[in-house]
Amino acid sequence: MSQQAVNGVPSRGKVLTVDNMNPNVKRVEYAVRGPIVQRAVQIEKELREGVKKPFTEVIKANIGDAHAMGQKPITFLRQVLALCAYPELMEDNKFPEDAKKRAQRILDACGGHSIGAYSASQGIECVRQDVARYIEKRDGGIPSNPDSIYLSTGASDAIVTMLKLLVCGEGHDRTGVMISIPQYPLYSAALADLGAVQISYYLDEDKCWSLDVAELRRALNAARQHCNPRVLCIINPGNPTGQVQSRQCIEDVIKFAKEEHLFLMADEVYQDNVYAEGCKFHSFKKVLFEMGPEYSSTVEMASFHSTSKCYMGECGFRGGYMEVINMDPEVKAQLIKLVSVRLCPPVPGQALLDLVVNPPQPDEPSYTTFMKERTAVLAALAEKAKLTEEIFNTVPGITCNPVQGAMYTFPRITLPQKAIDKAKEQGQVPDMYYCMRLLEEEGICLVPGSGFGQREGTFHFRMTILPPTEKLKVVLQKIRDFHLRFTQEFS
Amino acid sequence: MSQQAVNGVPSRGKVLTVDNMNPNVKRVEYAVRGPIVQRAVQIEKELREGVKKPFTEVIKANIGDAHAMGQKPITFLRQVLALCAYPELMEDNKFPEDAKKRAQRILDACGGHSIGAYSASQGIECVRQDVARYIEKRDGGIPSNPDSIYLSTGASDAIVTMLKLLVCGEGHDRTGVMISIPQYPLYSAALADLGAVQISYYLDEDKCWSLDVAELRRALNAARQHCNPRVLCIINPGNPTGQVQSRQCIEDVIKFAKEEHLFLMADEVYQDNVYAEGCKFHSFKKVLFEMGPEYSSTVEMASFHSTSKCYMGECGFRGGYMEVINMDPEVKAQLIKLVSVRLCPPVPGQALLDLVVNPPQPDEPSYTTFMKERTAVLAALAEKAKLTEEIFNTVPGITCNPVQGAMYTFPRITLPQKAIDKAKEQGQVPDMYYCMRLLEEEGICLVPGSGFGQREGTFHFRMTILPPTEKLKVVLQKIRDFHLRFTQEFS
Repeated sequence: MSQQAVNGVPSRGKVLTVDNMNPNVKRVEYAVRGPIVQRAVQIEKELREGVKKPFTEVIKANIGDAHAMGQKPITFLRQVLALCAYPELMEDNKFPEDAKKRAQRILDACGGHSIGAYSASQGIECVRQDVARYIEKRDGGIPSNPDSIYLSTGASDAIVTMLKLLVCGEGHDRTGVMISIPQYPLYSAALADLGAVQISYYLDEDKCWSLDVAELRRALNAARQHCNPRVLCIINPGNPTGQVQSRQCIEDVIKFAKEEHLFLMADEVYQDNVYAEGCKFHSFKKVLFEMGPEYSSTVEMASFHSTSKCYMGECGFRGGYMEVINMDPEVKAQLIKLVSVRLCPPVPGQALLDLVVNPPQPDEPSYTTFMKERTAVLAALAEKAKLTEEIFNTVPGITCNPVQGAMYTFPRITLPQKAIDKAKEQGQVPDMYYCMRLLEEEGICLVPGSGFGQREGTFHFRMTILPPTEKLKVVLQKIRDFHLRFTQEFS
Repeated sequence: MSQQAVNGVPSRGKVLTVDNMNPNVKRVEYAVRGPIVQRAVQIEKELREGVKKPFTEVIKANIGDAHAMGQKPITFLRQVLALCAYPELMEDNKFPEDAKKRAQRILDACGGHSIGAYSASQGIECVRQDVARYIEKRDGGIPSNPDSIYLSTGASDAIVTMLKLLVCGEGHDRTGVMISIPQYPLYSAALADLGAVQISYYLDEDKCWSLDVAELRRALNAARQHCNPRVLCIINPGNPTGQVQSRQCIEDVIKFAKEEHLFLMADEVYQDNVYAEGCKFHSFKKVLFEMGPEYSSTVEMASFHSTSKCYMGECGFRGGYMEVINMDPEVKAQLIKLVSVRLCPPVPGQALLDLVVNPPQPDEPSYTTFMKERTAVLAALAEKAKLTEEIFNTVPGITCNPVQGAMYTFPRITLPQKAIDKAKEQGQVPDMYYCMRLLEEEGICLVPGSGFGQREGTFHFRMTILPPTEKLKVVLQKIRDFHLRFTQEFS
């Protein structure tokens, strides 16, 4: 290509082809929006065009998108956002005073009192202060510094930015990043894009997807043969696996990170989504500080949060933040420089985040409604988590761990050998074949376990627990029927 | 570091330091939010704390941030956004019917009728359709396909994504990207981050910053010695230089791109910001198609637009799009996969973009107010563009090309040798020294020309023309006084 051009010979092919594009991009995979979802969108189109199917709608249980599944936005959040967008509404009696006060405070922190102005690249200062106060309250008073808070375009943005800082070296010195298997595929996608080395450690399905330090050590030692492991990523509560880590386990992980000189990345976007009795969310930061100065003054860490999950489910606004602990001040300066190139995170998302970390207080007019709405969402999720586990475990060939937290179930499915052979014949991995058949026959869109990683020879799928209860019951029943039929067909 | 860890010896230093972080990130520079802006923020803090200064406020003319400079949001845009955020307002008589209709149409295209749902990764389909219709209308009927439109998180996001696809190879085969000097530093920053090779071509200051194909050819031939040039980036209207390209020049550039087998990237975010008499915006796409099928069916191109500039100046929403032409279908599939990892662009920004490309029509109730507001903003910008050029050209030692379009002036300043020596003594580039002095003495924040690139031995600064007319006059007067004083001091 280069040669042709040097000689001035006009090339006939495209400048940009799959053969000469960025090879790292080619290696990127993101199953949550992969081929199965593209097929689901196509089927929806066919249904609209009147094509006859054994079902009348596609139920997309592939992605944690609460509003798309019918969850209503929280009134207070949307009132403040409307006031920020169109401040003339401040004169309107229909809006409660606390909503107006919040909106005015946000607008006063914006350039020209408009959410249409760029913010500081790190995020609006008063929002970062509110985030810091939220973290302090969450962690029982352990101090949080607004200068260590970086607002972001959803948590994904902050996670990729943090990984980007950490990647260096070539060949055997290339940065290695430890991620769980199963994992949320943002991680593997970002590592492929950055050309970093993925180090897989396996969660223990037999122990409710718990994390075992011996397995971390095995994975680390194996990886040291071919890369430079520098980062340990944890998702708690787990995605796609729904486990909630015990305090003891978090302490063990922190000890391991310190011993092995690893940078910790704690993905805690489901921190308010804990349902199982006896389970409680412990932030990595709180545990770190409770372990004493030997740890709290040395272990480097970033933790991530988002406006997309929890009770609000405001995915479309792309709000989020990360807090960094013990980060080298010179690296912090580099981080600020890096984020400044993209100017700033979306300001409506920053405003939303501010409300999430600083919700209505008991003495404010919006409190009662806000709490009612919040509690209803979380109670329904807890009910659906339980229901999902119970129904799946009645199906021969499906085993399902408790959904302790987050928004997903990741049941294991037993597939007959003939089905596995059939899939291979069609050039598909077996669980993709299974999920595609389910989509075509029942109109239910799930993500095959292979998109998240799983132990060789095992098969799973990820399903969100977000459909409304009655619809979820139908979905579970349909999956049950399909699974029995599918097993029958291939046995 | 790796070795220490292998032996299990606990390392005492940080895991992540400037010495072992991603070296590409270290090479990133972004002057528009660089050290001078950090100092400006600090000075603002000092003023609030009561520190005495020779001025009472800092005027930030460093960044194209219209609302921060006092420009009021366009009523119609914000009404629809408020309705989208809080659909209960649909019952409110204060909102015009066309605003409600637009909001309802956007909500109907969102999952669960909420802008809090994720959209398709490429963007909401009906918004992409509206963008395509807008482009068709702009370009006199040349067809635009919604499948070739990708919505983005501001134009920056789309530009970086497109560059990422194009970068490959190592050493002498590394992708080279041609960018203008002076340039908007997003480009150099993205190329550093991606490890691509920057190929600088110079705009001709003596000919009103025009682009000359002979200079493109010189730069390309020189670059072929050490990289694989594949991409040509153009900013029209120009940032920071404010020139508007002639139709002939665009045709010449397209011919050059075809001959030399280059992928064209046309940054056209200032397409509605054209002020000078005799100047007109010609889209690269329109010219390409007018050149006939030999060009329109072969030259690969991406063009970019944004909600941040023009008459609306809605920077905080981070809305934008790109249209790709003649892109290989397999590469398009890779592009969709890549953008899906970040889930979707912010939905409020997508909604805003929809209104920008589909504004109120003459028979709709919001039309009159909308047109009045739009016209007022653009007329004021045209006036300020002229004013800026006129006043600067009265100052001995400042020469300023006409601001034909965009939002900036990039005047050349003559600095006395003694000032240059003084700057070197302080370890600063001369125009940074000049701008820092201006900031400290007059409270005016500009960006030194060195942040955009300039011919060796010449000095410039970039200033936005966004301050309100009366304030702009004060700013220009202050710069004039400072420049004379500064020149005096060092002569």
